[in-house]
Amino acid sequence: MSLVDESLSAGLKRLSESIHSLRELAYEEYGSVEAIDAFLRSEGHATRVGVGGIRTAFDVLVGPSSPTVAILAEYDALPEVGHGCGHNLIAMTTVGAFVAAARSWASADVGLRLIGTPAEEGGGGKIRLLEQGVFEGVAAVISSHPAAESVWAAGATNLGVVGHEVVYKGLATHASSAPQAGRNALSALLLAFAGIDAARQRLGPDDRITGIITDGGSAVNVIPARAAGRFGIRSRSAARIEELVALFEGIVRGAALQTQTDVETSETMRLHLPMTPAPWISESMRRRLRESGIPPVLDHHVWASTDLGNVSAVIDTDWLRFPVTEQPIPGHSLAMAEASLSGLAHANGFVATEILAGTLLDLAASPSVKGWSGSRP
Amino acid sequence: MSLVDESLSAGLKRLSESIHSLRELAYEEYGSVEAIDAFLRSEGHATRVGVGGIRTAFDVLVGPSSPTVAILAEYDALPEVGHGCGHNLIAMTTVGAFVAAARSWASADVGLRLIGTPAEEGGGGKIRLLEQGVFEGVAAVISSHPAAESVWAAGATNLGVVGHEVVYKGLATHASSAPQAGRNALSALLLAFAGIDAARQRLGPDDRITGIITDGGSAVNVIPARAAGRFGIRSRSAARIEELVALFEGIVRGAALQTQTDVETSETMRLHLPMTPAPWISESMRRRLRESGIPPVLDHHVWASTDLGNVSAVIDTDWLRFPVTEQPIPGHSLAMAEASLSGLAHANGFVATEILAGTLLDLAASPSVKGWSGSRP
Amino acid sequence: MSLVDESLSAGLKRLSESIHSLRELAYEEYGSVEAIDAFLRSEGHATRVGVGGIRTAFDVLVGPSSPTVAILAEYDALPEVGHGCGHNLIAMTTVGAFVAAARSWASADVGLRLIGTPAEEGGGGKIRLLEQGVFEGVAAVISSHPAAESVWAAGATNLGVVGHEVVYKGLATHASSAPQAGRNALSALLLAFAGIDAARQRLGPDDRITGIITDGGSAVNVIPARAAGRFGIRSRSAARIEELVALFEGIVRGAALQTQTDVETSETMRLHLPMTPAPWISESMRRRLRESGIPPVLDHHVWASTDLGNVSAVIDTDWLRFPVTEQPIPGHSLAMAEASLSGLAHANGFVATEILAGTLLDLAASPSVKGWSGSRP
Amino acid sequence: MSLVDESLSAGLKRLSESIHSLRELAYEEYGSVEAIDAFLRSEGHATRVGVGGIRTAFDVLVGPSSPTVAILAEYDALPEVGHGCGHNLIAMTTVGAFVAAARSWASADVGLRLIGTPAEEGGGGKIRLLEQGVFEGVAAVISSHPAAESVWAAGATNLGVVGHEVVYKGLATHASSAPQAGRNALSALLLAFAGIDAARQRLGPDDRITGIITDGGSAVNVIPARAAGRFGIRSRSAARIEELVALFEGIVRGAALQTQTDVETSETMRLHLPMTPAPWISESMRRRLRESGIPPVLDHHVWASTDLGNVSAVIDTDWLRFPVTEQPIPGHSLAMAEASLSGLAHANGFVATEILAGTLLDLAASPSVKGWSGSRP
Repeated sequence: MSLVDESLSAGLKRLSESIHSLRELAYEEYGSVEAIDAFLRSEGHATRVGVGGIRTAFDVLVGPSSPTVAILAEYDALPEVGHGCGHNLIAMTTVGAFVAAARSWASADVGLRLIGTPAEEGGGGKIRLLEQGVFEGVAAVISSHPAAESVWAAGATNLGVVGHEVVYKGLATHASSAPQAGRNALSALLLAFAGIDAARQRLGPDDRITGIITDGGSAVNVIPARAAGRFGIRSRSAARIEELVALFEGIVRGAALQTQTDVETSETMRLHLPMTPAPWISESMRRRLRESGIPPVLDHHVWASTDLGNVSAVIDTDWLRFPVTEQPIPGHSLAMAEASLSGLAHANGFVATEILAGTLLDLAASPSVKGWSGSRP
Repeated sequence: MSLVDESLSAGLKRLSESIHSLRELAYEEYGSVEAIDAFLRSEGHATRVGVGGIRTAFDVLVGPSSPTVAILAEYDALPEVGHGCGHNLIAMTTVGAFVAAARSWASADVGLRLIGTPAEEGGGGKIRLLEQGVFEGVAAVISSHPAAESVWAAGATNLGVVGHEVVYKGLATHASSAPQAGRNALSALLLAFAGIDAARQRLGPDDRITGIITDGGSAVNVIPARAAGRFGIRSRSAARIEELVALFEGIVRGAALQTQTDVETSETMRLHLPMTPAPWISESMRRRLRESGIPPVLDHHVWASTDLGNVSAVIDTDWLRFPVTEQPIPGHSLAMAEASLSGLAHANGFVATEILAGTLLDLAASPSVKGWSGSRP
Repeated sequence: MSLVDESLSAGLKRLSESIHSLRELAYEEYGSVEAIDAFLRSEGHATRVGVGGIRTAFDVLVGPSSPTVAILAEYDALPEVGHGCGHNLIAMTTVGAFVAAARSWASADVGLRLIGTPAEEGGGGKIRLLEQGVFEGVAAVISSHPAAESVWAAGATNLGVVGHEVVYKGLATHASSAPQAGRNALSALLLAFAGIDAARQRLGPDDRITGIITDGGSAVNVIPARAAGRFGIRSRSAARIEELVALFEGIVRGAALQTQTDVETSETMRLHLPMTPAPWISESMRRRLRESGIPPVLDHHVWASTDLGNVSAVIDTDWLRFPVTEQPIPGHSLAMAEASLSGLAHANGFVATEILAGTLLDLAASPSVKGWSGSRP
Repeated sequence: MSLVDESLSAGLKRLSESIHSLRELAYEEYGSVEAIDAFLRSEGHATRVGVGGIRTAFDVLVGPSSPTVAILAEYDALPEVGHGCGHNLIAMTTVGAFVAAARSWASADVGLRLIGTPAEEGGGGKIRLLEQGVFEGVAAVISSHPAAESVWAAGATNLGVVGHEVVYKGLATHASSAPQAGRNALSALLLAFAGIDAARQRLGPDDRITGIITDGGSAVNVIPARAAGRFGIRSRSAARIEELVALFEGIVRGAALQTQTDVETSETMRLHLPMTPAPWISESMRRRLRESGIPPVLDHHVWASTDLGNVSAVIDTDWLRFPVTEQPIPGHSLAMAEASLSGLAHANGFVATEILAGTLLDLAASPSVKGWSGSRP
């Protein structure tokens, strides 16, 4: 490896282990950002922490501020399973690739940025940073993600997702002495689930509607006046998600009509768009992979979602997926948390760092970035 | 028995047997009306057949045309079980009571009428005759009904009912190759049933919503574009039926909303109001019963419905229930058809005829009829 | 009032207020028992606290230990609404009646007992005391209960109840990437509810099955591996409750079969039998009521349940219901808690105390108690 | 075209038109078989009609009786839409290919057969012929099928299917007077549908369970004692269909358990296995297609089912799909019936005949057939 030397690798491994042990949840990644900041300073970079009004977001720039090529770091953990999504490795590989690329940065026309994006797990950190203008001047974006299977891939697609909460309000009465006088909010929620199950016949292989019940009544002898559920709606395109949300809304409102209850829905998880990888960046990454002797998997599809999708909708973007295990393991699990700290994970992580660093250099030299007009064609 | 002699009884029994064997369905009781007409002519009465624009309705008058006391005959049978509701006995007792009362009719101020009301079984014959003005001038109404249990009663209450058909229209597609593209009308109907089942918690002991599916799709490999069901909605008051119909409509429309299908509802059975017996007529009948040594059952409630209820809503009305069996048997059954031809049925029918005839005489002498102002107070 | 004098009334009111302010939950009524104990000691009675192995049960005896006439005190409160069931008034009236009757106790053959029965609200304290033999030698039992409506009644009936928890266990998978591989425990629970709703058509006016969902899944992106609900099953006889439980078990197991999940049910509330009041005690109470100028309501039915029902199944028992309000208010409510401290509540409570004390004296003199053979005929 | 001359084409077109106009349903294809027989006789072949004990099955042989290469004809129509599946074209192309190949048949070691297989539409004619031993000695099988889209393909896969009828039996009662006493068979069927809808979350993209209701009760005022539905269960492998049938049986029986009803299931459509095309035959057909300038579609998947699948499970088999329309139209439709008589359909049918005839000659020369050991390796 020509860009990532042994000393850099050693520092990156310590950074990964440190973030892994911190297990900080979305928007509370203070220690992780401090560790990254310290590492970058030791490499001579000065981070701006708190960009976009988010205390655990940060930004580092080398060269001019526009156009730039940006690499995005993630570092938040999950409840219960800690780094069961392996974001310590995303931090390691993206920080490492930035440092390595910065050492060789020769371009006077194109800047290089590392943006620290918190709260990928349900918090939509990147969506807020986009809205706050933090991505201004960015012509191309890359990032990475560990894979819970033996896959190296660029240009992977996935599902978009939006989260909804549904709350029914009825009328409580004593379930034994006057059930007739009540309006059962739980009945409404159950009919909404029945409607969703009936609608499954209308879902294609890429569509998902799933739900849980978070409030199913408080006492057996009271007709529930309140019932609540949470639902995730997923598909492969924003347009199809919109169709499914309309179907879902009809189901939810139909159940209220059936039960003479009131219903309110609210978005509990903002729309995470499906990834639309920029083919020219994918090609660049795949060439680097092949040059490293790694055959990239083509047409790779991931069923999870990411706020990187929203970035990909407005800026040319791609992500590198690299394996932390040889046999498939469940995502968002303790097994994945353990695998994200393994020798294989770090060995592959160093290779990924090299590929990402090389891709950053490639992008800086590409006509798409050099001739960037400030907006997508 | 002073009003019904042996010769009259013999003729009435033949009339009952004749109607029983004809088994004519609603609005097709041509032979039965002919038999009644012949019997009345032999007694010197001239019927007007075809009143109110209905070919099997008829009318006979003795005395002035207003105010009158009317007794109502029924004579339609049921599909499959023939006279499983015993209307041959209603015809026999009401025709007989008219003939007997007419013999003793002395009142110059009050007329006596026998009105032949077809299609009690679902056809709502009395409702149409009311709308056609056939009941003009009628101050009080009585009728009879055989009971499938050992009960003599006046002033019995019952449930009102209205019948609705629901038709969902969706979009057919091949159930295997493109289920996603369809809109399943059967799913909509099933969700309506689910909504009704959930609503049962809101039904009181006198409320009923029951349904069947009359069209549940045509081929296993086609997503049904049409599905249909029929429903009966019953309760003890018109106001409560109206509430239940509103609840039902919400359920039915909610299921359409859930499935993006279209729905149409239509009334397949007009609102049959619950009976509201006039207490003063009930008292009159009960006195006649007690005088005959028969203790009437008080507060008797019948779960079936009748279009006599609609008459009772606008004219002072009551009905006499008399037993055709000692042990309870199911209504609308072959067993009831058989019982309606038994010796017990005819013996009790002659007693009922006597009670009804006496009641007609009582009513003619009552201040309520003599002082009838043309409308209810 | 001849048995309850002003001084006794004043002490009872303080006792009621004290228990009302303590608001102690089932099996934790330490302060309330202490207050009752102090009151009884001041009247010269020595309580045995901790009978039947329950720390907040107690017992006081006057005269021989068999046969005895027993009056039962209750004093537990409810979560959130405190004495929203008015058990402070049960304690006041039963303790007061015991003290008053003891003053006049002349019988050498029949003993008088006051038994303190904790945890009426779902804990089934009386059921445990019965099993522990605490009721040995008791020939007749009376108690009292405040009514949330303007009703004085003896011999009131009610519904029995049993509580069940249902837990389904399925197989968790990622709801987006591999829903097909899961077994959805929530689906099983929803189908159980659908089965219960369908079964409502088979419930008579006195039958109740009601439920809530206590665990409806933990995360939107995971197919729930566990789901749980709680259900109350009520009816007017133990035999009918048994039928309904069998129906319920079939529904619950049918839903498991439909979803290839496992199900476990457990009894969360022991069978509380419906009251079977002893008519001869009711007659005694009603006579006392009438003598006090109060017309008792006959055939009074209460839709709530009580562990006094289990006592009534094995010992001749009755209860006196007395009003704490002129207009009906909801049971188990803050309004009921407030009413249970009102002037009307205490005024009627003193009358009730008098009626109960007199009834105790009547029972001691009755042949049923004097000639008690040790078991029911 | 070298094998199919103009005179043969003209005769084949008349045969196709004749069968199209006859529109004979499964197992009643007497006229169609007569027409084919007449055509074959005019070409010098003698058919044996009635093979395998089926009056509308037939067989023609050229050369030795084992091993043979067989081509299968179909000729049954559909209710309502007549030849909406285009079997007239299957008859035309397979009879034509047999006649053309027979003219050039030189092989002394391998025989050539045309087998007339009735009742493909739900009747499973080929399954019965297999069981009757009619395919004895057959080493390889080909057939054809028109496509309702612009596709030429060999080696196409499809879904297998099995059909089940479910009949629930409950207890009828009057829906108004005694609903509690009944056991509603329709409720059971609705809960089975609810269970199927819930199970959709467990169906993969190739799995289908669809159903209709064929008996949903007879009268609104009677709790249904009988309810019946028909279901199709499909998937891409026999093993998966077996899993789905087990899931389905659990759902159906669970609903009976929930409702205390009895259930009986019966197979209304025998298991039609998915096609497992023999790759060496597919290769042969594709080479012939390419030589005719037609690029075959690879990996073609059809969502419909055919009893040819059962043949393919025991004998090396393939089918040629050829277009009768340029734009996709629905299968089993009047549009498809019309398209199956169009100029395009017949023009492509002649090409298909040529390809099939050539393939028969190829197969006769192949080592797989020449060295056929009498059973599959």
